[in-house]
Amino acid sequence: MSKILVFLALFVFVGYAVAEILPTPNGIDLPINYKNWKVISSSHRLDNKTLRIILGNEVAIEASRTGKTKSWPEGTILGKLVWKDAIHPKWQTAIVPGKFVHAEFMFKDSIKYKETGGWGFARWVGSEQKPYGKDATFVQECFNCHTPVKDNDYVFTHPITLP
Amino acid sequence: MSKILVFLALFVFVGYAVAEILPTPNGIDLPINYKNWKVISSSHRLDNKTLRIILGNEVAIEASRTGKTKSWPEGTILGKLVWKDAIHPKWQTAIVPGKFVHAEFMFKDSIKYKETGGWGFARWVGSEQKPYGKDATFVQECFNCHTPVKDNDYVFTHPITLP
Repeated sequence: MSKILVFLALFVFVGYAVAEILPTPNGIDLPINYKNWKVISSSHRLDNKTLRIILGNEVAIEASRTGKTKSWPEGTILGKLVWKDAIHPKWQTAIVPGKFVHAEFMFKDSIKYKETGGWGFARWVGSEQKPYGKDATFVQECFNCHTPVKDNDYVFTHPITLP
Repeated sequence: MSKILVFLALFVFVGYAVAEILPTPNGIDLPINYKNWKVISSSHRLDNKTLRIILGNEVAIEASRTGKTKSWPEGTILGKLVWKDAIHPKWQTAIVPGKFVHAEFMFKDSIKYKETGGWGFARWVGSEQKPYGKDATFVQECFNCHTPVKDNDYVFTHPITLP
């Protein structure tokens, strides 16, 4: 009986450890290595009190560091990591990243994503990285929000100035 | 004569192209690859209206991603890139990085920098990356400012929470 319990415990543990992160309803998989991508920019949204760090895959970094972002090249992936505002405990006038909110991405493929400005939209919510959207039509919400920056290739982010 | 002018022009051009970034008065060299380091955190200082992105070398990233930052391991280098606040032209409640201010670093070496909490401080100012400090005593200014976070190994930055 105890052997069975150990076996069951192991099974549950291993099952949990390899728990798959599901693709979004529009069929996009979470980029494996995104936490290690290089940095493109940051922002602080005062309206919804969130801090953001914007990263990019190698195609995006090459474009952002050489000023070739109008339009961003095919194969670009932009990743935006979002945290709720927190106040630094020892520097009260500094806003720092608190609770993790979500990671969201834009995938540039002008043919595949022709209907949404050449970008595939995807978001995974919370520390459990749950795919956002009830069905594939969720991208309309993303695209509508990005329409005011149509003249910047539908991208809000302007890459940082570096020395 | 024209050959001499061409030679001189080339000399000046090559000299400019390889213009050296000087070490700080306390003898620290700018880390070569810092713009490509992985991300540790970000912050928005409301007091002096600056946005910051905090990056780290591989030793720092390994420590920050595994929660081993009290204290940070020997060989850690933390880099903080600072920009003046700007307002996003198409999203007025978003603060984004504007003009580049400086890049500043903390180098962990408990023996070499024993007098300043085990950290070597360094800063390069502006796009020209001019070393900060009139002489080596400038580190006292850095160290004094970091003393309130002595119980966090003299580091203000708390690494981001990642999924």
